[in-house]
Amino acid sequence: MTVTNTTTPSAAEALALRYGPNAIPAAGPWNEHIALLLNHRSVRGYKPDALPAGTLETLVAAAQSAATSSNLQTWSVIAVTDPEKKAALAKLSNNQKHIEQCPLFLIWVADIARNQRMAVQESVTLEVNPYQETFLVAALDAALAAQNAVIAAESIGLDTVYIGALRNNPLEVAKVVNLVSGTFGVFGMCVGYGTEAAAGEVKPRLPQSVVLHHETYAVPNDEAQARSAYDALMSEFSARNEMAADTWTKRVINRMGKLSALSGRDKLVAALNGLGFDLK
Amino acid sequence: MTVTNTTTPSAAEALALRYGPNAIPAAGPWNEHIALLLNHRSVRGYKPDALPAGTLETLVAAAQSAATSSNLQTWSVIAVTDPEKKAALAKLSNNQKHIEQCPLFLIWVADIARNQRMAVQESVTLEVNPYQETFLVAALDAALAAQNAVIAAESIGLDTVYIGALRNNPLEVAKVVNLVSGTFGVFGMCVGYGTEAAAGEVKPRLPQSVVLHHETYAVPNDEAQARSAYDALMSEFSARNEMAADTWTKRVINRMGKLSALSGRDKLVAALNGLGFDLK
Repeated sequence: MTVTNTTTPSAAEALALRYGPNAIPAAGPWNEHIALLLNHRSVRGYKPDALPAGTLETLVAAAQSAATSSNLQTWSVIAVTDPEKKAALAKLSNNQKHIEQCPLFLIWVADIARNQRMAVQESVTLEVNPYQETFLVAALDAALAAQNAVIAAESIGLDTVYIGALRNNPLEVAKVVNLVSGTFGVFGMCVGYGTEAAAGEVKPRLPQSVVLHHETYAVPNDEAQARSAYDALMSEFSARNEMAADTWTKRVINRMGKLSALSGRDKLVAALNGLGFDLK
Repeated sequence: MTVTNTTTPSAAEALALRYGPNAIPAAGPWNEHIALLLNHRSVRGYKPDALPAGTLETLVAAAQSAATSSNLQTWSVIAVTDPEKKAALAKLSNNQKHIEQCPLFLIWVADIARNQRMAVQESVTLEVNPYQETFLVAALDAALAAQNAVIAAESIGLDTVYIGALRNNPLEVAKVVNLVSGTFGVFGMCVGYGTEAAAGEVKPRLPQSVVLHHETYAVPNDEAQARSAYDALMSEFSARNEMAADTWTKRVINRMGKLSALSGRDKLVAALNGLGFDLK
């Protein structure tokens, strides 16, 4: 069954796609906004088609409408459309071709430099700048903003995918887009119209029974059983949509088992230090 | 002017509320989803009214539908409704009374413990676990998930507010909700029906000219001027909605100037280490 953005699927349909037929949660309220959220999928192939006029500004308005810690607004976004820059960024991000294909590539930036410039102008010292907490706030606020942009983009029929591989080579990325000290590209995001070939199904997630805890964090009794059922679900999904019918367990082990899978991100602390984040 | 969730304000109205009348961006596409995003405000006062049946499960389904890095799903959420626990968490979070008032308090957890339990069962080592990158992925994915929950909540007429102060005392928070090694409460979130008194206006943000960069990061020529105009806008907003008519500049300096404003969050690295995140 294909569910598009132009219809509002029922809660039962949408929840079955997201959790599989045997782990549907007892969800209540439902409307077209929630249907849009449930219908999300990441798309890794784009047509060259241009975006409607004003799309970037609409996405940024949505992004800036997300909450931001103490209204500090310690994030920025860079809109990259230049083919040479996109090619360079693709090369730095595990050669992901969709970065070159998409008409708009967004770099979401943790930015403590803007407020630092203000501090210089006001002749004050921002004592909190060299702390892990300040980096974390900037990165989290960039994430909240980016997620709002995703929702806005999908609401107008666009597709997106987050590019965490932008962190593979942060210092090189910084050179491509002239980042200054106190700024860091937390992740990238492709925005555009996905190709038919790249339009996949909604990807199932772990059942709520292992993600949602009540009152305290407690390891669910059925955790191993739930994982086994999810492995079966993901094997079928993979066979239908991708390549090898790997289980989720195998995919997680491939991604988290060996340090080499981090593709250089094991050097993130040094990169952040080099970009002006002290992480005390 | 009051804009409620039950009407779809025009782009012009919504953008004027978000940026003030003199910095309206040239946004294009517009629909009820984008209107909902633009209409966001954080609410810090709640009625005791119960939530509709199934609300929690709907919010978690929305949250799990957000992107997650390599489908690792390294986050969890704890739903706290117990009055004693909420009171304890409020006390640990700068005595924010709305944590006690709201019927549902969510703790968004960076969780590398679940996959670690899987690794033990599968007799493998997850080499990436002790790295800053792995913590960052978990925290970012919790943020993407949480933001989807916010959108879903607001779409059904509920209010929310993020509680970053949950990081003031991470080890004490961990005791209240039985967090295990490899889990960390990134932030909290109140969910409920806001009181009339707490329903504020949409808070203006910095103009897009200083947040949105094109092709490269470049300090805008008008940055100081834009800040001055935003200071005036925020002074008026504060006078209408809060307490002292402080400028944004003054508020940022109050929050970032002195280490004491971090309320203990300058010890975040030690707390994370204590909770099983090595941050290499």
